[in-house]
Amino acid sequence: MFEAKVKSDVLKEVVDVISTLVDEAKFNAGKDALVVKAVDPAHVAMVDLSLDRSAFDGYKADDVELGLDMDKMKEVLKLSRAGELLHLVHEEDKNRLVVQVGNITRRMSLVDTAGMSDPKVPNLNLPAKVRVRTDELRQGIRASESVSDHIALIATPDGFEIVSEGDTDSVSLKLPKDMLDELACKEKVRSLFPLDYFSNMVKAISTAPTVTMNMGNDYPVKMEFEIAGGKGQVRYLLAPRIESE
Amino acid sequence: MFEAKVKSDVLKEVVDVISTLVDEAKFNAGKDALVVKAVDPAHVAMVDLSLDRSAFDGYKADDVELGLDMDKMKEVLKLSRAGELLHLVHEEDKNRLVVQVGNITRRMSLVDTAGMSDPKVPNLNLPAKVRVRTDELRQGIRASESVSDHIALIATPDGFEIVSEGDTDSVSLKLPKDMLDELACKEKVRSLFPLDYFSNMVKAISTAPTVTMNMGNDYPVKMEFEIAGGKGQVRYLLAPRIESE
Amino acid sequence: MFEAKVKSDVLKEVVDVISTLVDEAKFNAGKDALVVKAVDPAHVAMVDLSLDRSAFDGYKADDVELGLDMDKMKEVLKLSRAGELLHLVHEEDKNRLVVQVGNITRRMSLVDTAGMSDPKVPNLNLPAKVRVRTDELRQGIRASESVSDHIALIATPDGFEIVSEGDTDSVSLKLPKDMLDELACKEKVRSLFPLDYFSNMVKAISTAPTVTMNMGNDYPVKMEFEIAGGKGQVRYLLAPRIESE
Repeated sequence: MFEAKVKSDVLKEVVDVISTLVDEAKFNAGKDALVVKAVDPAHVAMVDLSLDRSAFDGYKADDVELGLDMDKMKEVLKLSRAGELLHLVHEEDKNRLVVQVGNITRRMSLVDTAGMSDPKVPNLNLPAKVRVRTDELRQGIRASESVSDHIALIATPDGFEIVSEGDTDSVSLKLPKDMLDELACKEKVRSLFPLDYFSNMVKAISTAPTVTMNMGNDYPVKMEFEIAGGKGQVRYLLAPRIESE
Repeated sequence: MFEAKVKSDVLKEVVDVISTLVDEAKFNAGKDALVVKAVDPAHVAMVDLSLDRSAFDGYKADDVELGLDMDKMKEVLKLSRAGELLHLVHEEDKNRLVVQVGNITRRMSLVDTAGMSDPKVPNLNLPAKVRVRTDELRQGIRASESVSDHIALIATPDGFEIVSEGDTDSVSLKLPKDMLDELACKEKVRSLFPLDYFSNMVKAISTAPTVTMNMGNDYPVKMEFEIAGGKGQVRYLLAPRIESE
Repeated sequence: MFEAKVKSDVLKEVVDVISTLVDEAKFNAGKDALVVKAVDPAHVAMVDLSLDRSAFDGYKADDVELGLDMDKMKEVLKLSRAGELLHLVHEEDKNRLVVQVGNITRRMSLVDTAGMSDPKVPNLNLPAKVRVRTDELRQGIRASESVSDHIALIATPDGFEIVSEGDTDSVSLKLPKDMLDELACKEKVRSLFPLDYFSNMVKAISTAPTVTMNMGNDYPVKMEFEIAGGKGQVRYLLAPRIESE
């Protein structure tokens, strides 16, 4: 069984983070937390989200798997004001989720989870670690968009850099050590990423003021940030694009 | 002859209500009130609007028929600020309406009213009557839009309900008796309506906080509300869609 | 050499004024002022802009010609907040402009100026002169847009008028003498202009509260206004459309 009450802005954070990568996802409602793991259809990016039961205004679950359509969840969220409570009940016999917002009741058929895999989050050895202000990442992305559809993320012992190179123009965002919340980097590392994925992931960060980025050389980037005021955690993984010389 | 001064927001209410159903309409400027009756091209909906001369800042008319193009009226309204006065003069010899807003003068040719019928508002025996907050109707429509292109309006002795049913999902807005401004209903009645018409009609209600709905079983709905702070009245009629079983 | 610091809103005014007519332009950075002259591809309109060195927060130049792409300049401007300083450096050896905004560095290849002519601003004898509030011009344009794609600008000893005539409708904005900041007109003059050009020019005026219009009979209009709080001057010239009777 699964029954929960949750503020619309908390649920919105979850849906925004997941819907960036997939249209449908398996929500695992465990006793103590809601967990969602998903890989995007192109297998370029992965998300691992967990939301503690304390992030809810009411939570009862005994290890249920719910296949949810992200667009339908967004539709319901649009009916609520920030801070308004949503009441979610899983009707197992009818294979649906019933969502109540104010005087509205939405009955939503669940998606079959049989075909959805449980992605294993790989154990990566990422030598560099940087904690950056989300605002700065956004600014770097905005600057890159007109120049190229790829960006390089670079960490050095002195700072963090986003570089985008086009045919005639280039753009870079350089954050020296003193503008970073954290920097652990012994040797320069650099990896290239598809801008659209990176951009969408960063756009999905709605409240976290900083993001921790774990990086290597031509290696995936792991981005970690908080949701629900610290009562939830998100890990995004994004595969690099190997530069052809 | 026809000459009037009217605040732009009052005229905007009139134009919004009429343009929801028709592109052109016959405005009957009588001695004591402006009256507009119109049926939409598909003969699904009807409007009957009257605006008392006291809603104007100046009004002189002796039973003139003016064929007005709603888009042109909207263009002129966009040139004015809320509360600004529009000066309307019918130049009979040139078959045009001259509208002044501030330093702008727009001369507008009138539409031929010969082909426009005078719809008779049918005398319907509608057993149930509900007065609902306009906000609630809007919320119910918003919730329904993603589920189906029809909505059922239901009145019972206990309350009022909007229900929309799709192939897999359904949504309902339930307003119990104590959330209604008025409820007169002895037996449950239910009729199905096209969502787009109903939605456009409700969107045309700009200032009225409540709407009175007269309903029957598989019967048209009559919606009544005030404009111009009570100095005008609108009646919308919408034909039901008979449910095929 | 060319190196300058400039507030983003000052540079934005310049780029808006120029990009209304051309996609690329030659910026002449002289010792005391930046000067841009350009003719639109259809040879219907011309701009002559000069921005004094005092409009900059830092300015060093020795008669350099910079071929700038207006879209790229807009991209960089979007990265800045109003009032934020942009640092511009011409790297002559690499034929590029380097723009710094906050932590962002954009390297921008310059456009070849070889094919760009130096338009001579013609010496026109325009008998009428009117100074109008920019707001009023905007309102007149807005009113005209739905009626025709041409507007007539008219000056008389009594005032200034914008008239737009369509097949069935017409619209006019009439500003009597006492609503004008300045009026010098001995005889009525009237010229017809393409609305889209006139509209785009007026939209490019962002801060100047008034515009001085020099007009003749079936003659070009010269519009003059200030930018950068009076530290810059813009002259627009727009060719008339000769009315065929």
